[in-house]
Amino acid sequence: LVSLQRFILSIHMLDFINALAAAIGPSHVLTSPEAMRSHLVEPRGLFHARALAVVKPGNTEEVAAVVRLARQYHVPIVPQGGNTGLVGGGVPDDSGQAIVLSLTRMNRVRHVDADNDALTVEAGATLASVQEAARAANRLFPLSLASEGSCTIGGNIATNAGGTAVLSYGNMRDLVLGLEVVLADGRIWNGLRCLRKDNSGYALKHLFIGSEGTLGIVTTAALRLFPRPQSVETFWAGVSSPDQALALFRHLRAHFGSLLTAAELLPQTGLDMVLTHFPQTRAPLPAPHMWHILFEVSSPMRMDLRDILATVLEEALEKNLLENGVIAQSLAQREAFWLLREAMSEAQKHEGGSIKHDISVPISALPEMIRAGCEAALNVMPGCRPVPFGHVGDGNLHFNISQPIGMDKALFLKHWDVMNAAIHALVAELGGSAAAEHGVGRLKADIMRTLKQPQDVDMMRAIKNAFDPEGLLNPGTILSRES
Amino acid sequence: LVSLQRFILSIHMLDFINALAAAIGPSHVLTSPEAMRSHLVEPRGLFHARALAVVKPGNTEEVAAVVRLARQYHVPIVPQGGNTGLVGGGVPDDSGQAIVLSLTRMNRVRHVDADNDALTVEAGATLASVQEAARAANRLFPLSLASEGSCTIGGNIATNAGGTAVLSYGNMRDLVLGLEVVLADGRIWNGLRCLRKDNSGYALKHLFIGSEGTLGIVTTAALRLFPRPQSVETFWAGVSSPDQALALFRHLRAHFGSLLTAAELLPQTGLDMVLTHFPQTRAPLPAPHMWHILFEVSSPMRMDLRDILATVLEEALEKNLLENGVIAQSLAQREAFWLLREAMSEAQKHEGGSIKHDISVPISALPEMIRAGCEAALNVMPGCRPVPFGHVGDGNLHFNISQPIGMDKALFLKHWDVMNAAIHALVAELGGSAAAEHGVGRLKADIMRTLKQPQDVDMMRAIKNAFDPEGLLNPGTILSRES
Repeated sequence: LVSLQRFILSIHMLDFINALAAAIGPSHVLTSPEAMRSHLVEPRGLFHARALAVVKPGNTEEVAAVVRLARQYHVPIVPQGGNTGLVGGGVPDDSGQAIVLSLTRMNRVRHVDADNDALTVEAGATLASVQEAARAANRLFPLSLASEGSCTIGGNIATNAGGTAVLSYGNMRDLVLGLEVVLADGRIWNGLRCLRKDNSGYALKHLFIGSEGTLGIVTTAALRLFPRPQSVETFWAGVSSPDQALALFRHLRAHFGSLLTAAELLPQTGLDMVLTHFPQTRAPLPAPHMWHILFEVSSPMRMDLRDILATVLEEALEKNLLENGVIAQSLAQREAFWLLREAMSEAQKHEGGSIKHDISVPISALPEMIRAGCEAALNVMPGCRPVPFGHVGDGNLHFNISQPIGMDKALFLKHWDVMNAAIHALVAELGGSAAAEHGVGRLKADIMRTLKQPQDVDMMRAIKNAFDPEGLLNPGTILSRES
Repeated sequence: LVSLQRFILSIHMLDFINALAAAIGPSHVLTSPEAMRSHLVEPRGLFHARALAVVKPGNTEEVAAVVRLARQYHVPIVPQGGNTGLVGGGVPDDSGQAIVLSLTRMNRVRHVDADNDALTVEAGATLASVQEAARAANRLFPLSLASEGSCTIGGNIATNAGGTAVLSYGNMRDLVLGLEVVLADGRIWNGLRCLRKDNSGYALKHLFIGSEGTLGIVTTAALRLFPRPQSVETFWAGVSSPDQALALFRHLRAHFGSLLTAAELLPQTGLDMVLTHFPQTRAPLPAPHMWHILFEVSSPMRMDLRDILATVLEEALEKNLLENGVIAQSLAQREAFWLLREAMSEAQKHEGGSIKHDISVPISALPEMIRAGCEAALNVMPGCRPVPFGHVGDGNLHFNISQPIGMDKALFLKHWDVMNAAIHALVAELGGSAAAEHGVGRLKADIMRTLKQPQDVDMMRAIKNAFDPEGLLNPGTILSRES
């Protein structure tokens, strides 16, 4: 009987696959393990994903057709962009019953409207291609991430991406003017407006942003552009502690306001890892410091920012807000500084296992978070090497813990949940978030009930039921089946 | 029988009133027409409002108690702040069956956290008191509106308020870090976090912002603060057309970027009304111009903005981007310029009836909107005087139409719906919004189905049903009973 049911099921699914092929063309419906592989392996290798098929519609109508068919056959859909997500929100579970809906064929920048400081782009375009299209029109699209060459705008929207320019320009949410979304019932919602002000009802756009494909499938977006910076200065400082780093940040923020466009914190331990594993890099300062901070100031006006920065830093030295510092003297030196920051995650891979936390706290709580977090990590695993680094101006740290030297990697990674629990308990105590930048995905869906109040989860569940009553859009992401 | 039913009903309501009095104190439950009057008359006099009672809880727990009682007795609740709203979203209908829940007793600025650039405030505090608390801590809270002395933070959040600083700082939505909300079931949601980054699920905060009290009652908010501007320059220009105004705006925006903090457009007709009815005012420029534009540039850095502005304006004159202009030479002159802008609405009251539109279009469509809008208004009512003015940098105009001179006011105002339809049709054609800044309220709830796609209204209705299944929170606002 079981095998008869399976046979009937597979006939049914064969019908579905054929219907998909008829709707969007057989060459865009991948079913072989080889063709599907790159869509099922995620960057950290935390999830074992399987799929019925990977489908690649070429336009919004085709996305809608796929959604309608999936609904008809009751098949879950996992929308996917560049598959660079770090929380498993872009890959299906291991049941093999879902399809991956890849947006990568929808990759056109449709329209750059410099006069309105706006750009319209399909969801599958890479972030880098949008940055480039803005640059070609003498505008800035400020979102900037390590994976910008392969992550897509749809993924940036689905996860409300952050990155290194949030301090001045905000998260992806702040950069989206309008959206086109295919809804769970297969209808297309055209919210693609380029308006700066619109108070005609509930913030539907904001609901879709950050919903990780669980409420609808973003197919096109209208994005905000900005004047290109005409003057940029980059500065590297060595400091003795997170407290000193924070005091220096505040000094610069008080002087530069929104012209302070980046502030990234790195511990010496992390810098050492980069210097070891990236032979082309070298330390910006002659002596080691416990902590380092990378600043950027930039202005849309052509102005002598370097002179101003030098004065502001002299004042900072007098006030004992840093131990040493250097202003980048060339574009090459500026890029060398940034490479040290951008190589942080990669460098940790060469040091064995790393247990990750993506947290934020109120900015003033950062020093306490770092102190207590390192202590807690060492309690869980003596000899481990905490490497908290990240966006100090946003209160957002990647609180990564590298394994003790010489320990078995798999053994270390078995402490993932215990380590998470210890760090997340501190985050909660300090009024922070344990899913600050990368999203919830499937990685943290199971702990949502411990991270959030019942009211939060109840409201999210009510919204999910209202938008996707059959539960076919990225099930298990954000809300686990139980929550 | 009918009178018996009424008798039973009134006994039932008497129970309710007594229960309210027991919960929050009898002196905070107003039932006499005199005591309730100021809460039932709204600024434009468009709605005839009645209420069972006006209740004034003193803290969040009391708000929750009122909501639970209203639910038990099935009584609709209309949350109210400073009662300065322009679309009837803060007053009940004329059935007399609802209560007004006034937040005005909850008016404390609880905590100013300059280190985190954050401030925690109760919903009933006035906007001016928050601006003042920020100033006292050497910070800026940038939201700025004509009604700032009496409008409240809760109302600013409920309507996603805009104003004159949106160009650089965004709408109220962009200034809110966290919220505390009493939900329709009487539970309290504590979303009062001061985080810059939090991607732990759906954007509940954004859903409440701009929902005009229909999804929950905002009781406390955590707001963002900014460094105070150290240099400010104000500039008045006379231009020949909206096209020239826009070209001048773009020239300044390209030079100043986020340092261009205001850009307000006024027609000569409107300026004349102000000069006539405010005897203390005088025109900034010696000759009349068809249009005027008021700019402000400001910087958190102490810098010689005036010299830079003078150079930029010289370039603008060479490029024929303005007819004449003057930089304010003193704080008094700066305030005199701003008074001309802020008196625009008030001045129109002295010119008889005025039919209002609160619209936004993509910025590049502003000239066409103004041209076609004036033409359409004159078609509806020959001799009428269009006074479109507002936030040119946001694409947001208050497209007000003053009555023909000498016409009967009531007769003119009978053309409200026809005039609205003509202007809103143009707005739709140009991809704009007919509820850009003031919200939907009860004024535009009936036309939501004509302003929006069915998908929009369906999603909003689904959210409303999920959050307030009994429909007791501000019924008839945003969504009419039919939509």
